[in-house]
Amino acid sequence: MEPFKVHILGCGSALPTTRHNPSMQVVECRGKLYMIDCGEGAQQAMRRSGLSFAKLGHIFISHAHGDHCFGLIGMISTFGLLGRTARLHVYGPEALQHMLQRQVEFFCRDLGYEVEYHPVDTTRQEVVFEDHSLTVETIPLEHRMPCAGYLFREKPSLPHIRRDMLDCYEIPVSQIQNIKLGHDYTLPDGTVVPNEKLVTPADPPRSYAYCSDTRFMPQLAEMVKGVTTLYHESTYASDNLEMAKKYYHSTAAQAATVARQAQVGKLLLGHFSSRYNDENILLKEAQKEFENSFLTNEKCVFDI
Amino acid sequence: MEPFKVHILGCGSALPTTRHNPSMQVVECRGKLYMIDCGEGAQQAMRRSGLSFAKLGHIFISHAHGDHCFGLIGMISTFGLLGRTARLHVYGPEALQHMLQRQVEFFCRDLGYEVEYHPVDTTRQEVVFEDHSLTVETIPLEHRMPCAGYLFREKPSLPHIRRDMLDCYEIPVSQIQNIKLGHDYTLPDGTVVPNEKLVTPADPPRSYAYCSDTRFMPQLAEMVKGVTTLYHESTYASDNLEMAKKYYHSTAAQAATVARQAQVGKLLLGHFSSRYNDENILLKEAQKEFENSFLTNEKCVFDI
Repeated sequence: MEPFKVHILGCGSALPTTRHNPSMQVVECRGKLYMIDCGEGAQQAMRRSGLSFAKLGHIFISHAHGDHCFGLIGMISTFGLLGRTARLHVYGPEALQHMLQRQVEFFCRDLGYEVEYHPVDTTRQEVVFEDHSLTVETIPLEHRMPCAGYLFREKPSLPHIRRDMLDCYEIPVSQIQNIKLGHDYTLPDGTVVPNEKLVTPADPPRSYAYCSDTRFMPQLAEMVKGVTTLYHESTYASDNLEMAKKYYHSTAAQAATVARQAQVGKLLLGHFSSRYNDENILLKEAQKEFENSFLTNEKCVFDI
Repeated sequence: MEPFKVHILGCGSALPTTRHNPSMQVVECRGKLYMIDCGEGAQQAMRRSGLSFAKLGHIFISHAHGDHCFGLIGMISTFGLLGRTARLHVYGPEALQHMLQRQVEFFCRDLGYEVEYHPVDTTRQEVVFEDHSLTVETIPLEHRMPCAGYLFREKPSLPHIRRDMLDCYEIPVSQIQNIKLGHDYTLPDGTVVPNEKLVTPADPPRSYAYCSDTRFMPQLAEMVKGVTTLYHESTYASDNLEMAKKYYHSTAAQAATVARQAQVGKLLLGHFSSRYNDENILLKEAQKEFENSFLTNEKCVFDI
C-alpha cells in the first residue's frame, strides 16, 4: 500500500504549553504533503519533523482562531526567503482571507510566488480540492465562529498484478499497466486469459477526517461515516462537560461517541486543554465508548 | 548586586532552524521583565524558560521583519486568554503600529487589557522609556528598513550600608534608609558620625545595548560607549562580507570592532545565519578583535 499518513505537529489547544504545540498536522499521500491548521511555530515544527517544504502545496485552515492559523504568515514568509516559486494554496473560512492578504502585503513584499486563498463554505459538506491522489471535502462544524473540518479521501488505486500469473503465461512487462487497467491478455496461440485471473483486488481507498474545533454534533457521525481514521477534538474530560458546552468544544467521550456511531477504523484524540498534565484520563474515557482510540502527541505519525 | 540579566530565547536570523529560534530576548531587572524583539514562538520560549508572563509589561521591537515580530500577536492573544488586565506597552517603528492594531482587532476581540503602541523614532538616540529601575534609549541602526536598537541603563543604586559600623555605633535599623540616602548619624551624646564612614560606594550602574539588525556602523561605538554588555548582530563570518554589505547585516569581526572601539565590558554575538552549523567560526573571528566575546544560544542567561 502506498503511504497515507498523518504527522501530528501540534495537539494542544488555545494556550500553548511546554508540552504541546497548537493545532497543526500534515497529511502525507503519495509523496505530497497537505497541511491542516497552522498554529504558531508550524515552520519550525515541520523542520523538526524532517518534512520537506517543497512538497507542501496546500494548507487547509479550519477557522480563524489564533491557535489554528498564527503560523501561516511565518511559513509564507520563510517560503519566500527560500526562493519558492510554486503557488501555495490556502483553504479556509472567508473571514481569514482579507487579514492574511494584509499580512502578506505588509510582511512579504516581493514574494517570489503566489499565495492563492480559496474561501470555503463552512456550512456545507462539499469537495473543495482534488488532485491525482485524493479529494478533500469540507465538514461543517459547530464552533464559536465559522469552522470547517476536512475529509481527505484517497482515490481508488489500481488492482494488484499477480506476479505468479505473469510468470505462468510469460506476459511481458509492457502489458502490466494494461492489465491493471482491466484488460484481458491474449496469448500467442489466441487464448484469452481473463483479467480477473491476472489481478487481485485493489486496496480499499482510505480516508481521514479532521474535526477540530467543534461542540458535540450528533449529525457528524453521518458525515464521517466509515472513514478509516477520524481525528476529533477532545479538549476536555467529562468533568468539564459544561466548559465544553459553553466554549463549543467536545469531551473525549463525545469524540468517541462520534467515532462509534460513524463506525470509523480508529479515533485520534487531540486539542487537549492545558489543564491536563496527563491526557490518559481523556484516553480512558474515550476507550469506554470506542476502544480503538489513541492520544495524539507531537512527532507522532499515524498510518491512516 | 541586584540581578540584571538577559535571557536569550532566540539567536537565529530570518530562517528559523532546528537549532535556533528567531530573535527574542528578555531583560530581567529588579523583578521586572522587558522583552526585546518577539519572533515566532516567543510565548512558548518564555514558558520553556520559566519566565513569568505577569512580570512582562514592555516589549521593544527593533524593526518589522517577521523574524523580529511574528510572535507578538500570539503573545498578545495568549495574555488575553489568561485574563490579563494590566496594560501591555509595545515600542517599535511606526510602520508596525497599524498592522499590529489590525491583527489585534481581528484575532483578539474582547481583549481584557489594552495594548498601547509607542512608535519610536528610529533615526535618533533618545530615551523612550523610564521606570524606577532603568531607562531605555533607542539606538538608530542601519538596516533595509527603519530599525532601532535599544539601550537599557540601570538607574544608580544606593550605597551599601556598613554593617560593622551599624553595630559599632548601635544605630537602629530604622535609620538605615536615611543613611543610604546620604544622611549623617547623630549619636545620643550629640557626636555626628559622617555619612562616608557609614557606607561604601554604590555599585556602578550597568547597561545593556541591543543592536540588531544593522550593517557595520563606524559611528555606533560612540553611541554604546562603555556599556557593560553589548549584543551586536553577527549574521555572517568574514567569508560573507559581501552578503553582509548587500543585506545590511554585520560580520562577527565587525561586531567585535564596535565592541573594541566602544570599550564595552563584554560582547554577545547572535542573529546567526542558518548557513553556519557551528558558530565557533564567528566566535573566533570576533575574539581576534575583542577577546571578551561570547556566542549566545537559546536558554543562555547572561549577567549584564
